[in-house]
Amino acid sequence: MTPPLPALLDQIHTEAQALYGKGRVADYIPALGEVPPRQFGMAVALVSGESHTVGDAQVPFSLQSITKLFTFVIALKLMGEGLWQRVGREPSGAAFNSIVQLETENGIPRNPFINAGALVITDILTSRYAHLDYALLGALRRLADEPNLHWNPRVAKSERDTAHRNMAMAYFMKSHGNFQNAPELVLDNYCRQCATEMNCQQLAQATLFLANGGRDLAMDGQPDELFLGADDTRRVNALLLTCGAYDAAGDFAYRIGLPVKTGVGGGIVAVVPGVGTVAVWSPELDAKGNSVLGAFALERLVALTGWGHTTL
Amino acid sequence: MTPPLPALLDQIHTEAQALYGKGRVADYIPALGEVPPRQFGMAVALVSGESHTVGDAQVPFSLQSITKLFTFVIALKLMGEGLWQRVGREPSGAAFNSIVQLETENGIPRNPFINAGALVITDILTSRYAHLDYALLGALRRLADEPNLHWNPRVAKSERDTAHRNMAMAYFMKSHGNFQNAPELVLDNYCRQCATEMNCQQLAQATLFLANGGRDLAMDGQPDELFLGADDTRRVNALLLTCGAYDAAGDFAYRIGLPVKTGVGGGIVAVVPGVGTVAVWSPELDAKGNSVLGAFALERLVALTGWGHTTL
Amino acid sequence: MTPPLPALLDQIHTEAQALYGKGRVADYIPALGEVPPRQFGMAVALVSGESHTVGDAQVPFSLQSITKLFTFVIALKLMGEGLWQRVGREPSGAAFNSIVQLETENGIPRNPFINAGALVITDILTSRYAHLDYALLGALRRLADEPNLHWNPRVAKSERDTAHRNMAMAYFMKSHGNFQNAPELVLDNYCRQCATEMNCQQLAQATLFLANGGRDLAMDGQPDELFLGADDTRRVNALLLTCGAYDAAGDFAYRIGLPVKTGVGGGIVAVVPGVGTVAVWSPELDAKGNSVLGAFALERLVALTGWGHTTL
Amino acid sequence: MTPPLPALLDQIHTEAQALYGKGRVADYIPALGEVPPRQFGMAVALVSGESHTVGDAQVPFSLQSITKLFTFVIALKLMGEGLWQRVGREPSGAAFNSIVQLETENGIPRNPFINAGALVITDILTSRYAHLDYALLGALRRLADEPNLHWNPRVAKSERDTAHRNMAMAYFMKSHGNFQNAPELVLDNYCRQCATEMNCQQLAQATLFLANGGRDLAMDGQPDELFLGADDTRRVNALLLTCGAYDAAGDFAYRIGLPVKTGVGGGIVAVVPGVGTVAVWSPELDAKGNSVLGAFALERLVALTGWGHTTL
Repeated sequence: MTPPLPALLDQIHTEAQALYGKGRVADYIPALGEVPPRQFGMAVALVSGESHTVGDAQVPFSLQSITKLFTFVIALKLMGEGLWQRVGREPSGAAFNSIVQLETENGIPRNPFINAGALVITDILTSRYAHLDYALLGALRRLADEPNLHWNPRVAKSERDTAHRNMAMAYFMKSHGNFQNAPELVLDNYCRQCATEMNCQQLAQATLFLANGGRDLAMDGQPDELFLGADDTRRVNALLLTCGAYDAAGDFAYRIGLPVKTGVGGGIVAVVPGVGTVAVWSPELDAKGNSVLGAFALERLVALTGWGHTTL
Repeated sequence: MTPPLPALLDQIHTEAQALYGKGRVADYIPALGEVPPRQFGMAVALVSGESHTVGDAQVPFSLQSITKLFTFVIALKLMGEGLWQRVGREPSGAAFNSIVQLETENGIPRNPFINAGALVITDILTSRYAHLDYALLGALRRLADEPNLHWNPRVAKSERDTAHRNMAMAYFMKSHGNFQNAPELVLDNYCRQCATEMNCQQLAQATLFLANGGRDLAMDGQPDELFLGADDTRRVNALLLTCGAYDAAGDFAYRIGLPVKTGVGGGIVAVVPGVGTVAVWSPELDAKGNSVLGAFALERLVALTGWGHTTL
Repeated sequence: MTPPLPALLDQIHTEAQALYGKGRVADYIPALGEVPPRQFGMAVALVSGESHTVGDAQVPFSLQSITKLFTFVIALKLMGEGLWQRVGREPSGAAFNSIVQLETENGIPRNPFINAGALVITDILTSRYAHLDYALLGALRRLADEPNLHWNPRVAKSERDTAHRNMAMAYFMKSHGNFQNAPELVLDNYCRQCATEMNCQQLAQATLFLANGGRDLAMDGQPDELFLGADDTRRVNALLLTCGAYDAAGDFAYRIGLPVKTGVGGGIVAVVPGVGTVAVWSPELDAKGNSVLGAFALERLVALTGWGHTTL
Repeated sequence: MTPPLPALLDQIHTEAQALYGKGRVADYIPALGEVPPRQFGMAVALVSGESHTVGDAQVPFSLQSITKLFTFVIALKLMGEGLWQRVGREPSGAAFNSIVQLETENGIPRNPFINAGALVITDILTSRYAHLDYALLGALRRLADEPNLHWNPRVAKSERDTAHRNMAMAYFMKSHGNFQNAPELVLDNYCRQCATEMNCQQLAQATLFLANGGRDLAMDGQPDELFLGADDTRRVNALLLTCGAYDAAGDFAYRIGLPVKTGVGGGIVAVVPGVGTVAVWSPELDAKGNSVLGAFALERLVALTGWGHTTL
């Protein structure tokens, strides 16, 4: 019989700490490189309303690529199936920042979670919203039921100053007619977006609609609202399972078997359809840019709870 | 409320027939090109023991790449985690018969379901079994509870005569030290393997262990046997979800959201973990080599039953 | 016995006109697309001081990539062998505007004549000269002995407005640390550079130093000056022979066998070491971006004079 | 004033020996790896009939890829321009044994001097000659005026045993319809061809027709015979200049500026059109598979004689 969640989280916390030092904090964005490496937080939010945390689950961290999940959902709500004219939905088979695929496939990125695809999504939202803050922070505040969410201007600036490769991809897609706005403007928005900060508890909460058939769990006793249609929710989860962990998507699916989205800030959020969500954070990354302790913690949680077995 | 399965299958059968003529029968293997195109069969096997069929579900067809699922499972049982020294588990991001990836990744195929990866698996089994028939047909006969399964020698020969590209991949991997046997011998086995024939009912039955935590459903009143461990079963399903439909894996995940394996003979088998399996067959293929009516039928079945929602 | 040059040029002029309509004027830069297609000019300048022209040899045209020859020579004079830290000297084996090679080779372009390589050269010159006009127009005016050379501001603007792909390459190289200045600034200079206009007679004259061991032929009775060292002159010619015609370099070498530089404005300049230079211009381009009539005219000239035989 | 050739060769010999140890003997073919590294020979044959040698110019070595020059010339004589339906004439921009380019360009190798292209040439000759010995050895014996030329059966066997990658390329081209014979048979011929042995003096002699407008220099007082047409001779030289040194062709052109063909046996032959030929041999190779001392010796010879200047 499975022990209760709090005991499981404690056990995983203890086991995970043995892995400190096995990865490296991302340093290609200077401001990110300053984060103390030996931190670990984890939060589980269940569709029942229950939630549990362990470790540094209240420490805000930089969401980075995890924001791509939310901007994608917003764009999907706006554009529906028309979105797939601008971006594909296949695993990339290449590094998250590869430009090769764009050349051989006419400037259409493979999926919305590699950098090029996320830039297209931000381009779409830039055309729609005068201030992307409204779209993204507004959605996150509502989903997390937390009015105090912000992006870190120092991280955003550090990211913008070193965004040459993303600029290259934006211009490349523009040369193929797959970019509407000035790359400079979209990159400003993109770097602010990536610099959004949340803690594990907030992130698990904000993602809960994906485990709940698209329904947002209202915290205050009011009835749930449908944030995303049930079919689209299933599709988003499918895309997270096949493309959510950069070019380690297959490895994550194999080890963890859940829809996930990872970020170079060290965060990972996972969806257990019908059950709940898990957010985990630890800054040290493996060679593919995914959190070492985070991936381990999810793998252990799946093994100990059998959650992977019920979904796959 | 969902109508009963027999009615659903009838409805899907009717709807699917409207798509005749939208695809083309595979003709790169001459003997396969002779199959009459306008055929459609579908079978559902449930872990409860129940099963239902519609259309040409008793007509044997050439399994082709669907056999890769079974040879992979056999190799995984033999080698365990050591298997991943020989083959990766990431989506390929390229066509099923691409050789480019092999050059840039030292002769290690991306996953066991692209041609190069399946050749490595057959190479492994060739080293182990004097007659690969024993390994593959034996397993299929047990799993399907059907002693009369065979491979079609005419299809096997036709396939072997035109196997130049697969020979190229085998030699290329050999040049990287990732091939143990003579390519000629492995290709003989591989072409016989691909020429294995089953019908939808048998295929759904043979795959049922993947929906049942690895347990083989004994037909004759005896207790189930564990064919594959529960963890490995989950992992195989994960791999089928991310890599089972060639370079349309992302599209299949998005539309269908189930672990699948497709073949150029027009068959597709899908796993609904905890529920059952679906085998569908129709020879006309889309541009990516997947059955047009088969993919449609699965998409409809998922939409009508909500099976996709419970798993993802 | 070879007929005299004027008669040969007349003959080639007549033969070449039969090819009108076989190519297309470049239209990816809108202002270039307005050039009337049926024009043909040719000029030969000999190291003896003699020169001959035929057809529209006095009509100025947009040099485009032909300027890469001159900016490269200026950069080589400035940096010597150090230049090869920033750019390679191998044929690219890919289209002139491919970005793939940059990703697999760490942002170092294959050679100075593909777009990426030419951008690096312009970046180098941008670091050195406050006004690139001085460097390039100054050199061209001296070499052509013609004070009235300019760039066409309308073409430069049209080019700058559509320079997304070149911007992508500049940013990509910047992300690899192989770009010193702001891409925007370098692109301004690059587009002005490409918009430089000369006629065939001026171009043949300006290139004559490459046929003369690096010595500039002074027009006014003064002694020659050494514009480029003899060894470097030979090396520049070698590079023009292997890389001067985009990804048709091998075909040009095979058919013509001379160092050449082509441009999408329809110009081609060829060097006959020890003998002289040939400039030819006709706006219609083949699929690889080289002038149809220009390539034909050079091939005929080589066949009729045997110049190719003495050099190769 | 240039010193006489014998003194130049002595000087170069002395200088070159300082480079012993800078490269490595090819060991991917085991039998080649046994050649003692510290050997250096050089021979110059002039169209005047004069010839000079220095060092180990009488020691036979394995021609390897240098044979591709001769098989190409024989195929060109047989097929004329039709040859270019089977193989391209552009520099490859990739390693000599790359298979990537074949996939993206429909099984047509870039040029006759990369492995894939040379295999196509051998396939063509295999269709024409019952015994390829006749075609190649016969031509070499005539051109070198030396009846005792052979291939080394031990090297041929060693090469054949490790020819997996070449087999892969042959099968790959066969899958694209660009291979007529059984790959096994062509590889037998190819490995024997590569194992042909000559010494520097013989090799310089055998190549002299390329410096002499295609005329074979008869040794015995009889008049010259035309071995190859003058136009084709120029074209072969152009191809050697752009593609003769694998993916170091641009570097060779830059440093040496002559048509060359290199081999992993450590040999290089260079053509000085109108002047003569140079054969040089030393087994230690650089990272791109070209002889370290050989390339150095040619660079020095060109610098000291100015031969590069007259041709380019």
